[in-house]
Amino acid sequence: MTDRPSILIVNGPNLNMLGKREPEIYGRDTLADIEAACRKKADELGFAIDFRQSNKEGDLVEWTQSAGTAHKGIIVNAGGYTHTSIALLDALIASGLPVVEVHLSNIFRREEFRHHSYVSRAASGVICGFGLKGYLMALDAMAQIVRPD
Amino acid sequence: MTDRPSILIVNGPNLNMLGKREPEIYGRDTLADIEAACRKKADELGFAIDFRQSNKEGDLVEWTQSAGTAHKGIIVNAGGYTHTSIALLDALIASGLPVVEVHLSNIFRREEFRHHSYVSRAASGVICGFGLKGYLMALDAMAQIVRPD
Amino acid sequence: MTDRPSILIVNGPNLNMLGKREPEIYGRDTLADIEAACRKKADELGFAIDFRQSNKEGDLVEWTQSAGTAHKGIIVNAGGYTHTSIALLDALIASGLPVVEVHLSNIFRREEFRHHSYVSRAASGVICGFGLKGYLMALDAMAQIVRPD
Amino acid sequence: MTDRPSILIVNGPNLNMLGKREPEIYGRDTLADIEAACRKKADELGFAIDFRQSNKEGDLVEWTQSAGTAHKGIIVNAGGYTHTSIALLDALIASGLPVVEVHLSNIFRREEFRHHSYVSRAASGVICGFGLKGYLMALDAMAQIVRPD
Amino acid sequence: MTDRPSILIVNGPNLNMLGKREPEIYGRDTLADIEAACRKKADELGFAIDFRQSNKEGDLVEWTQSAGTAHKGIIVNAGGYTHTSIALLDALIASGLPVVEVHLSNIFRREEFRHHSYVSRAASGVICGFGLKGYLMALDAMAQIVRPD
Amino acid sequence: MTDRPSILIVNGPNLNMLGKREPEIYGRDTLADIEAACRKKADELGFAIDFRQSNKEGDLVEWTQSAGTAHKGIIVNAGGYTHTSIALLDALIASGLPVVEVHLSNIFRREEFRHHSYVSRAASGVICGFGLKGYLMALDAMAQIVRPD
Amino acid sequence: MTDRPSILIVNGPNLNMLGKREPEIYGRDTLADIEAACRKKADELGFAIDFRQSNKEGDLVEWTQSAGTAHKGIIVNAGGYTHTSIALLDALIASGLPVVEVHLSNIFRREEFRHHSYVSRAASGVICGFGLKGYLMALDAMAQIVRPD
Amino acid sequence: MTDRPSILIVNGPNLNMLGKREPEIYGRDTLADIEAACRKKADELGFAIDFRQSNKEGDLVEWTQSAGTAHKGIIVNAGGYTHTSIALLDALIASGLPVVEVHLSNIFRREEFRHHSYVSRAASGVICGFGLKGYLMALDAMAQIVRPD
Amino acid sequence: MTDRPSILIVNGPNLNMLGKREPEIYGRDTLADIEAACRKKADELGFAIDFRQSNKEGDLVEWTQSAGTAHKGIIVNAGGYTHTSIALLDALIASGLPVVEVHLSNIFRREEFRHHSYVSRAASGVICGFGLKGYLMALDAMAQIVRPD
Amino acid sequence: MTDRPSILIVNGPNLNMLGKREPEIYGRDTLADIEAACRKKADELGFAIDFRQSNKEGDLVEWTQSAGTAHKGIIVNAGGYTHTSIALLDALIASGLPVVEVHLSNIFRREEFRHHSYVSRAASGVICGFGLKGYLMALDAMAQIVRPD
Amino acid sequence: MTDRPSILIVNGPNLNMLGKREPEIYGRDTLADIEAACRKKADELGFAIDFRQSNKEGDLVEWTQSAGTAHKGIIVNAGGYTHTSIALLDALIASGLPVVEVHLSNIFRREEFRHHSYVSRAASGVICGFGLKGYLMALDAMAQIVRPD
Amino acid sequence: MTDRPSILIVNGPNLNMLGKREPEIYGRDTLADIEAACRKKADELGFAIDFRQSNKEGDLVEWTQSAGTAHKGIIVNAGGYTHTSIALLDALIASGLPVVEVHLSNIFRREEFRHHSYVSRAASGVICGFGLKGYLMALDAMAQIVRPD
Repeated sequence: MTDRPSILIVNGPNLNMLGKREPEIYGRDTLADIEAACRKKADELGFAIDFRQSNKEGDLVEWTQSAGTAHKGIIVNAGGYTHTSIALLDALIASGLPVVEVHLSNIFRREEFRHHSYVSRAASGVICGFGLKGYLMALDAMAQIVRPD
Repeated sequence: MTDRPSILIVNGPNLNMLGKREPEIYGRDTLADIEAACRKKADELGFAIDFRQSNKEGDLVEWTQSAGTAHKGIIVNAGGYTHTSIALLDALIASGLPVVEVHLSNIFRREEFRHHSYVSRAASGVICGFGLKGYLMALDAMAQIVRPD
Repeated sequence: MTDRPSILIVNGPNLNMLGKREPEIYGRDTLADIEAACRKKADELGFAIDFRQSNKEGDLVEWTQSAGTAHKGIIVNAGGYTHTSIALLDALIASGLPVVEVHLSNIFRREEFRHHSYVSRAASGVICGFGLKGYLMALDAMAQIVRPD
Repeated sequence: MTDRPSILIVNGPNLNMLGKREPEIYGRDTLADIEAACRKKADELGFAIDFRQSNKEGDLVEWTQSAGTAHKGIIVNAGGYTHTSIALLDALIASGLPVVEVHLSNIFRREEFRHHSYVSRAASGVICGFGLKGYLMALDAMAQIVRPD
Repeated sequence: MTDRPSILIVNGPNLNMLGKREPEIYGRDTLADIEAACRKKADELGFAIDFRQSNKEGDLVEWTQSAGTAHKGIIVNAGGYTHTSIALLDALIASGLPVVEVHLSNIFRREEFRHHSYVSRAASGVICGFGLKGYLMALDAMAQIVRPD
Repeated sequence: MTDRPSILIVNGPNLNMLGKREPEIYGRDTLADIEAACRKKADELGFAIDFRQSNKEGDLVEWTQSAGTAHKGIIVNAGGYTHTSIALLDALIASGLPVVEVHLSNIFRREEFRHHSYVSRAASGVICGFGLKGYLMALDAMAQIVRPD
Repeated sequence: MTDRPSILIVNGPNLNMLGKREPEIYGRDTLADIEAACRKKADELGFAIDFRQSNKEGDLVEWTQSAGTAHKGIIVNAGGYTHTSIALLDALIASGLPVVEVHLSNIFRREEFRHHSYVSRAASGVICGFGLKGYLMALDAMAQIVRPD
Repeated sequence: MTDRPSILIVNGPNLNMLGKREPEIYGRDTLADIEAACRKKADELGFAIDFRQSNKEGDLVEWTQSAGTAHKGIIVNAGGYTHTSIALLDALIASGLPVVEVHLSNIFRREEFRHHSYVSRAASGVICGFGLKGYLMALDAMAQIVRPD
Repeated sequence: MTDRPSILIVNGPNLNMLGKREPEIYGRDTLADIEAACRKKADELGFAIDFRQSNKEGDLVEWTQSAGTAHKGIIVNAGGYTHTSIALLDALIASGLPVVEVHLSNIFRREEFRHHSYVSRAASGVICGFGLKGYLMALDAMAQIVRPD
Repeated sequence: MTDRPSILIVNGPNLNMLGKREPEIYGRDTLADIEAACRKKADELGFAIDFRQSNKEGDLVEWTQSAGTAHKGIIVNAGGYTHTSIALLDALIASGLPVVEVHLSNIFRREEFRHHSYVSRAASGVICGFGLKGYLMALDAMAQIVRPD
Repeated sequence: MTDRPSILIVNGPNLNMLGKREPEIYGRDTLADIEAACRKKADELGFAIDFRQSNKEGDLVEWTQSAGTAHKGIIVNAGGYTHTSIALLDALIASGLPVVEVHLSNIFRREEFRHHSYVSRAASGVICGFGLKGYLMALDAMAQIVRPD
Repeated sequence: MTDRPSILIVNGPNLNMLGKREPEIYGRDTLADIEAACRKKADELGFAIDFRQSNKEGDLVEWTQSAGTAHKGIIVNAGGYTHTSIALLDALIASGLPVVEVHLSNIFRREEFRHHSYVSRAASGVICGFGLKGYLMALDAMAQIVRPD
């Protein structure tokens, strides 16, 4: 089991608050619920996952940079840094790994400043608006990218 | 089997050309391949699907308008009309159904004019950049929206 | 009665859905209600009317182009094409007829993208926000344009 | 007759010049002609009217503010203040009355800076391009808003 | 008491409507309540105040211009003119007095056109979003500007 | 003669009105005149032509899509769709054929919204402002592209 | 002397403050100095002048409107209303008189929002940056417009 | 005294430099001076305060997130992150607490890029331009929000 | 032959470098090749030509200004000055001659700053993207403008 | 007479065409007429003038640069370079002389691209719209700048 | 040697990845190579250097803030924070030291969002596009700023 | 010595004024000083230089065009043409040589219109803000580009 390919799942600022605040936007699942669901899904797909959250841009940058050696792909929900972090974009590119971008809410139905994503420039694809389910879809998608049939 | 809930899958202009042109952007799958894969996936999920394509904005508008009575949800890849059709947006809203938006390519990595989507304003969620796979993900997501656990 | 001057009333996409969806925006009148009220009003004014609806931009363009010979004026509610159709603008100009633009809702209190109208460039005047009543006002206004006192 | 519902008709800057200047844009009717026609129409509709004009933004603001107690609705042609007066917009909202916006010319076919209206944000509907006739249409529309069938 | 330093408090359009309309935005205090509270606060601070309101841009301009000789500072809530009046800006600068800008509501959470203030260019500081309390805070701030410890 | 290379000439909305309306902009030639002149020119050049007009965006898209097998090049005057149709742009690219864009009038001397062309992104070259003559020039140019010396 | 042609000289907001404030921008001349110099110059040119100042947009509008019967031309320094008053622009056009626009300072070297003038759209010419002298130049220019050699 | 309601006061980047640099913009008070004055004021108001500063966006985000359980309100001077941090905005919203925004200088008289604040979208009110005094005003305002009379 | 009508062909900056640099954009023809081809074509059409090139904006302006007396039309490829030279635009208008604008490459598929042309405002028509051939098409077009059938 | 202070009068592109073309915009005076009138006016004012015209930006730059030693002021009508030449702006600043900007027509009533002037940033004042007369006004203004009373 | 003046060299996010990724943009030198070359160059110039890298905005801010006491100048390559960090800009200003900005690549030939730098507002000068060499040039330039001849 | 590789150093408008005007921006060095320093530096580096200045865009274009045969690289300080000359950009590209862009002042701290450079699109790198020293740095950089170790 140790030789299963590993996927890094990076969660950005305020995602540690999930389930506690604004459930009408982000749903009632906690980040722990999401992690648990991801682990279950990853098991089914034969992946290991490294599931992380930080409110610090620098952590996201560093986890992403160093992912290249330990992981086969990155799933990223960068929260508020999605729209402002060129540093994260550069790190994602530098990782050399396939990237799947996830958002819990449909950012295109929210404020104008949430419609633009720097992360998208580095992503193979984008999934938004499906809550916890979106992470599982991202794993499914990553499975196909990493091990296409 | 006739009483399975039905999902309308609407494909817009030039999607009939899939697999024939620009495989570096859109991949090598044909629309028939996508339809077949969708049917298989729908069967697994217990859905019926109505899979259509048209190059005419008016067809997309009309299929969408009338979906409310026959279907439980709409999956839409509106092609070039994604970015220009307020008429389609209005029809999607008028349908009263949940909408999932799909794109084969990651539209946010292409020309600036492809970054804006009128369809997104009516969609529960958006999936882009995963080729044929994106349609199956959309069906998965729709399943959860229509029959949440 | 056959020699009464005729007015073409053109309705664009999704207006066939009137009364069924989003009554808080568009009211509860159906398009049939509007047509009936227009016929009654036209009778009072001594007009014949040709009342049409299509979801297809091309239909609107063609009906408008050919109106010059059969009609004395055009009343147009182009729905979503109001904001996007240069083709319809050109057809309205090409018709050589007076044009009155109608909208059921006050488009200037809705989304930003509904504030701009290509149709207005070809119209003698604009009426918006009065629901079914707006069509009757448009007929009144057209009567004065076609047969000024 | 004293208990007829009253409509305030507010005219903004330069409308006192009507009929004297630029008839190719504004027509040959004077403001007195418009007032007379409005009175006649109001009589038919069972309304009293209070017909006013001022070149001063402050007058328009004050007449509008205080309309709430004496009137049932406001018809406003704010002239040049249409495009610049947030103070008038706030007063119209503060009045709590239904508002119908009128313009003699089709402002959407004139200079770019006349295409935007602050008044529209407070109006039930907008009528423009029909000259004197537009005021009568506004009274008709107001009648339906104040006393819907 | 006549030799107490005096502060001019200028209120712009529609502030005479306070407490009567839109309490969800502006609160339930009337302008008389605000004046009374300001007088009480000014007494505590050893100030005289001259508390005025007008719906006319010209009044605001003139009161402000002539404040230089009679007053030591200006507190201004210019209402809708905040966003449009260069004339008032010039008068505030011409007064040569310290200026504190107040708004009852947080204008930065309202419509886009309320985010820009010409008054701010002449103000020492800005206070917004605290209702009646904001005026008292402005007096406090002015006290420190006029008589710094 | 059947084995002459064929050129598809696609005409968009309102071009069927040529010669009837606005000759000061579009000239007095009818579309039939243009077709006749094109046939004559094509004969001289050793081309067959397929000369079509539609007011429907979908027709233009479909004719263009399918041109790849039957034709060697596309000459397109997309009328009002020039400025709005991403669907047509995608179809032109999908055709894989050389494209020459023609306009009867100099669109760069007309309204601002006619200065931008989606078609140009797919075209080898652009010819505008020369009326009927422009089509013949386009055939000349196409001859050189298809059969360069 | 009563039959000398008359020029209306209109001064806008804050020009009554001239010489008292910000001499580094507006110079040390008072408005009375300017009026005196204008009267002297007008005498030399054989003109009568009507020299006015108001801080109220409505006054400027009304003086301008009614100038047509009593005057032969208008010289206007609209101060802050230069940049914001469409009402004044309309009044200047409505006056039917030649208009010369004057500014004491070079508005194009000041803040961005002072670079745009609605007044310029109605003016034969513009003079700015020459202080008091600019008014005399405007009278000279007006003399040539009213009585060209 | 331990049961006094507590207010979190969050200071962003470079505020630790106060009093050392650019006193012409930020004044001569140090952050320690501000903290001392806040403590004194809080005592008078019956509040406890938790006064913090960090140059790290992540710290601000985390302190703010977790404020909900320990504090009754947040006073925030986010320094340079005011204008760029969507992550902080989201954390402020997620805290569920009333927020008062403070700035030492009047940001609306400084560079254009300092005129926009993400923080304002989450704030009850904004105070800027009053130096150290602004913090005390913020505490006053917070007192009224947390314990309105 | 001396009495043949003459066409001025003006070439702007860097066109003297043709054939030497960037053949993937501009082709392999030299300016001498273009001149030779133009002379041959002009002979066929019964025209004289005056074929010039300069890297100096002033030369283009002066050749164009003085063309009115010696020539019947101007064909202009202004190179980089196309996008920046109002002086050349004014000279083209001042010449009073018909103008045909030519570009070797399709400027609308290149950098954004090459999409705008001042020259187009003075041109009867525009031809771009056809290399050397475009000059011959321009001569053809000019022949019809100067000597329409 | 040789010791009279000298003014450089610089005329830009196309001003050598004056009187020959577009008299409805620029009037019927030739540049020679303007020079003669300027000489006469300069004599009255006790000035020498150096009156020049060039179509070359570089000439304008050089004449302006070297004006500092020989002249006391610069009057400049830069024609089309007004709107595009930063080089000329820098030269005017470098000259260290007072600058008066003149335009024959009122550039603010013409195309949008003529509303912006780089020259204005270096000018004491601007005079536009008065034809030949504007030059004489500029000399008058310069006289006061160079030799203020 | 301890009394040599010291220069702080600050490197921002992803610069620790140098030489490992995207050598076509950033070259093959590692950050260690750059540091070594800088040390060698600093020795030649008689400088000490403090060479640091962090992916955290807060680190850059704090190192910069505190540089004032220990260093004589700052050389900064802020990576992605160059374009987004107002906090860093404020810290650079607060340091009171001369600043030289360096970028390995020519940021003006890359994506539009890399063309704007907040750092430049605080920098004496900017060097970009010369890879490792740019750091040595920055040291050279700093030497002259700190110890001008 | 004649076979040393040669570098063309091109200086644009107003650089001949160096040392005479605005030393607070451009420093006190003259262009002759810069040339002398460049020659000395070039000698050290084993380069010949061709050092030129012109105020004429066309000269810069031509010197640049023809540099390809005689020189190994171009150092360019295009002065005001930096921001406006597409012709120079095209010439630099056409030269096929490496280009280093130099500015004496830090253009990013000056007026907005100096922040954009067309030259940068053709440059390997940019150096600005270091006065005379910047030219020597450019030579250093060029040495490495032309003869990398």
